[in-house]
Amino acid sequence: MSALFVDKPYFFDTTLRDGEQTPGVTLTPEQKLEIACALSDIGVHVIEAGSAAASVGELAAIGLISDAGLATECCTYVRALPYDIDLAADAGADSVHLVVPVSDLHIVEKMQKTRDEVYAMAMSAVDYAKERGLIVELSGEDASRADQAFLSHIFTDGVAHGADRLCFCDTVGLLTPEKTAEFIPPLTRIAPVSIHCHNDLGFALPNTITALKSGASCAHVTVNGLGERAGNTPFEEVVMSLEVLYGRDTGIQTEKIYPLSTLVARLTGIDLPANKAIVGSMAFTHESGIHAHGVLKNARTYEPVPPEMVGRTRRIVLGKHSGKASVEASLNELGYTVTSEQLLAILTRVKKLGDEGKRVTDADLMTIADTVLQLVYTPVISLRQFTVVSGNKSIPTASVTMAVNGNETTAAATGNGPVDAAIRALQDSVSDVADITLEDYHVDAITGGADALVDVTVKLRKDGKVITSRGARTDIITASVEAVIAGMNRLLREEK
Amino acid sequence: MSALFVDKPYFFDTTLRDGEQTPGVTLTPEQKLEIACALSDIGVHVIEAGSAAASVGELAAIGLISDAGLATECCTYVRALPYDIDLAADAGADSVHLVVPVSDLHIVEKMQKTRDEVYAMAMSAVDYAKERGLIVELSGEDASRADQAFLSHIFTDGVAHGADRLCFCDTVGLLTPEKTAEFIPPLTRIAPVSIHCHNDLGFALPNTITALKSGASCAHVTVNGLGERAGNTPFEEVVMSLEVLYGRDTGIQTEKIYPLSTLVARLTGIDLPANKAIVGSMAFTHESGIHAHGVLKNARTYEPVPPEMVGRTRRIVLGKHSGKASVEASLNELGYTVTSEQLLAILTRVKKLGDEGKRVTDADLMTIADTVLQLVYTPVISLRQFTVVSGNKSIPTASVTMAVNGNETTAAATGNGPVDAAIRALQDSVSDVADITLEDYHVDAITGGADALVDVTVKLRKDGKVITSRGARTDIITASVEAVIAGMNRLLREEK
Repeated sequence: MSALFVDKPYFFDTTLRDGEQTPGVTLTPEQKLEIACALSDIGVHVIEAGSAAASVGELAAIGLISDAGLATECCTYVRALPYDIDLAADAGADSVHLVVPVSDLHIVEKMQKTRDEVYAMAMSAVDYAKERGLIVELSGEDASRADQAFLSHIFTDGVAHGADRLCFCDTVGLLTPEKTAEFIPPLTRIAPVSIHCHNDLGFALPNTITALKSGASCAHVTVNGLGERAGNTPFEEVVMSLEVLYGRDTGIQTEKIYPLSTLVARLTGIDLPANKAIVGSMAFTHESGIHAHGVLKNARTYEPVPPEMVGRTRRIVLGKHSGKASVEASLNELGYTVTSEQLLAILTRVKKLGDEGKRVTDADLMTIADTVLQLVYTPVISLRQFTVVSGNKSIPTASVTMAVNGNETTAAATGNGPVDAAIRALQDSVSDVADITLEDYHVDAITGGADALVDVTVKLRKDGKVITSRGARTDIITASVEAVIAGMNRLLREEK
Repeated sequence: MSALFVDKPYFFDTTLRDGEQTPGVTLTPEQKLEIACALSDIGVHVIEAGSAAASVGELAAIGLISDAGLATECCTYVRALPYDIDLAADAGADSVHLVVPVSDLHIVEKMQKTRDEVYAMAMSAVDYAKERGLIVELSGEDASRADQAFLSHIFTDGVAHGADRLCFCDTVGLLTPEKTAEFIPPLTRIAPVSIHCHNDLGFALPNTITALKSGASCAHVTVNGLGERAGNTPFEEVVMSLEVLYGRDTGIQTEKIYPLSTLVARLTGIDLPANKAIVGSMAFTHESGIHAHGVLKNARTYEPVPPEMVGRTRRIVLGKHSGKASVEASLNELGYTVTSEQLLAILTRVKKLGDEGKRVTDADLMTIADTVLQLVYTPVISLRQFTVVSGNKSIPTASVTMAVNGNETTAAATGNGPVDAAIRALQDSVSDVADITLEDYHVDAITGGADALVDVTVKLRKDGKVITSRGARTDIITASVEAVIAGMNRLLREEK
C-alpha cells in the first residue's frame, strides 16, 4: 500500500492557529514569532500564523511572522469574507487557508444559509483572494460529514476559479481510516489535497497517515497535538511514525522535535502530558525491573526509537517495580559499591518505599544505602528554627538558624515571596562552607482545598554535583525548606 | 470490513499492572481495590490486578481484589516461573497473564536464552498453571518483532498444553494497522486472541481496533492510557470509537467513563492531559468564536459525542478567540443584559485581555461589563493589611484587617499552612455579612526558580452562587489572598 504515498509529504503547521485556539492559551506576537522561527528551522513547509480577523494581537503576529524573512510559507486562516482576505493580504501573508463549511449541518444550522449561498461565497472569495495575490488553500469544513458530491463540486469549481490547493477537514474527529481511504483519492485528482484531522476519538494520527497513503500531499498538524477539545494531529507523531513505522524520509530534522515541543509547552502553558508519545516526560523513562533490566542490556528491547533521534535522553527511575539492575546502576552513579546481599536488602527497602506510594529520590536511595551499609553520617547541617513573615504591607522576610558542622549560625533574607526568602536564607546560612545553587524548583499542580498536600522537588548544585530531593507537607514553605535541607546535606557530606 | 468484528469484544483492563508501572505511580492495596470495584462496575471483563512477584504490597492487593467478590475475572501477571505462578494461585487469582518473550531480540539479548529454552519454559509453565487450577492467557511478549512461525508454534503447542487464551503483545508500539491485519487472523484460528498494544508512536488505538476487526476477541486497555513510556491503549478511546465510529455495542456503561478516569487520575497522581480525547479537561470546552457560536446553536456542529454520554458537561470559556455569542451567553449567566454596542465594546476588551496572555475569569468579565455599562460599584470589602507568620516551630498564623461595608474588622486564624491560615482569616473577617465557602483552590504546576510566577484560581460559593477569580504573583500567599478578595467582592455585591 505504501506505494501510494506521495514522494515526500508537506507539513502545514497550524500550532499558531488551531493550537492557539486551545481554551486558555494565548500567545503574544513575540511568542508566536519565536515558535514560527523554530517551526521554520525544523523544516515545516507552511505555518498558519493565526486568524487575521480574530483580534488586533493576531494581526500584529501575522505581520511580524511574514516580515521575518523565513523560508516557510506564511499562511493565515480566513472566512469567505473580503474583510478577512483584506486583513490577511495587508498583513503580508503569502497564502490563505480559506475555510468554507460544506456539511449541511454546518451550512444550515450554524450559518443559516443554503448550499448555493455557501458555494457563491466560496467562489467569490477565491476570486478575491487571487486578485489580492494570495496562494489559496480552499478548505472544506466538516468535510467528513458532507455530501461528497457537493464537496467535489465546490472543490472542482474552486480550482477553476484559481484555488491552488484543497483541504479536507475532519472538523470534529469523526473520520475513520476506512472512510479516509474512500474519500481522499477522488479529490487528489482535482488538485493537491491537505488532510486536517481532529483527535476527538483518538483517530487523528491514523486518519492522517491513511490520507497520505491515499494520495494526499500535505498533513495539517500542531506541535504536541494542541488544539480545541482533544486537539489536532500531533506533528511529532506524524513525523516519527512515517520515519519509523513506514520508512519514509520526511525531511524534518527529528532531533529538534523535543526542543520544539518543550518550547511550545512553555509558551502556551499547556504541559506535555506525562504519557504523550515521543515527547511526554515518561516516553523514555523506565522503572519496572524487567523493562529497566532489558534496556540496560540492549535499549532496543524496550525502546522503539533511540531517544537521541528526537533530541532526548533515557531515564531510569526507582520505585516498587524496580529490579536489581536499575538499583545497582543508580547506586553506582551515586558512588556506592555494594555486594549482592546488600543490593537485595536495598532493593527490598526501595520497593517498600514504593509500596507506600512514594517516589524514590536520590536522597531517599542514599539514606537507604547508608542504613544497609551501616554507614553513619552525621548530617553536616541541621535546622534549629525558621520563621517567615509575609503580608501585603511587608517584604517577605525569613530567618533561619542552623547548626553547620556544629556551629550555630543564623541568617536572614528577603525574597519575591516567602518561599524565595526562606531558600535564600538557607543558602546564606551555609555560604561559609559551600556555594549551593538552586537549579530547579518544582511543585506539582495543587488542587483541592487550600490545605492540600504540597509536593516540592528541588534540584541543587554544588560544583559539578547535582542532586534531587523532596519535601511533602500541607505547608508549601515547610515542604520547600525540608527539600532544600535534605539535598544540602547530601551535597555537603564528604565524598565517598 | 466491520463484518469481521467479533460479536462483542472483551475488555481486559491492565490499569492496575501496566498502568501502575508508569514511573512514579504507586497505588496502595486499598487504592487498587477502589479502582478494581469501579472497573467491575463499568463492565470490564478481566482485571489484571498486578504482578504477584513484584512486591509484598502487590501481593496484598491481588488478595484483596480476588476476595472482594467482584463479578469480574481477577488476573495476575506472571513470568514463566513456578515461583510466580504459586504466588498468583496462593493470592486467589482466577487467571494468569503468562508472559513469554517470543522475539529473538528479547529471547537472546534480554533473557540470554535460546528459542528452545523459552519454548520449554512456556510449556511447563502452562502445565503448572493448569495444575494449580488457573485460567491461562498465554502471551507473546514483543510478538510484533517475532518470527511469526515461531509465535504460531509456541501458541499452538501452548493451547495443546491447556492454555485457554492467547495474547499478542506489541511491546514497544512498533505495530501498524497493516501488519495487525496480517498477523492476527491466523492466530484466531488457534484460540481466542487478545491484543495488547503500546502507544510509543501513537498507534495503540488503531492497531487495537484493527485487531478487533481482524477477529481478536479481547482488547487489553488501561484507563487514561496509563502505562510505561507512552502508555497502553486507552480504555475510553477503544470504547467510544467502537460505539461512535463503528456503531458497535460494547456493553460498557459509557456514562461512568469520566468518573472512572478522574478516580484513576486522582489515585495515580497522573493528571489527565488537557487535550486527552474524551476525558481531557478541554475535550468538551469551547473558546473560539466560531466554535462556541456553533455549539450554542447546535452542539453537534463542534461536538462529536454528547458530553453526557461519557458523564461530562460542556464548558464555554472566554479569551481572545471569543465571539459575540459566547460573551453574551456568559454575561446573561452573570445577570447582565447588554445592547449590541455594549456587547461589541465588552468583546473588544475581552479580546484585549486575551491578547495580553491572560485567562478571562468571571471576575474579569464583570469588571469589564461594569466599566462598559458605566456601573459604579463600591467594593463591599477592601483589604487594609494581612500578615502571615510561619515556621517550623510555630503554627501557621494569619491576621487580616478588612473594611467591610466601611467598618474596619480584624480577624486571625491558624491553618495547616500559611495559605490555609490566610484564607481562613479572610473567611472569618466577612462571616458577619456572609458565609462564603472555598469550593476549589488550584495552583498550576510551579516550575523554574523559587521566585516563579504563581497563578492561583479559586472557586467560591455563597448560597447558590459560584464564582471563579484569579490572583497572579510571585508570592503564593499574596496571590491567594487577592484571588479570594476579588471573588468575595463579586459575591457580596447587591444582586443586579
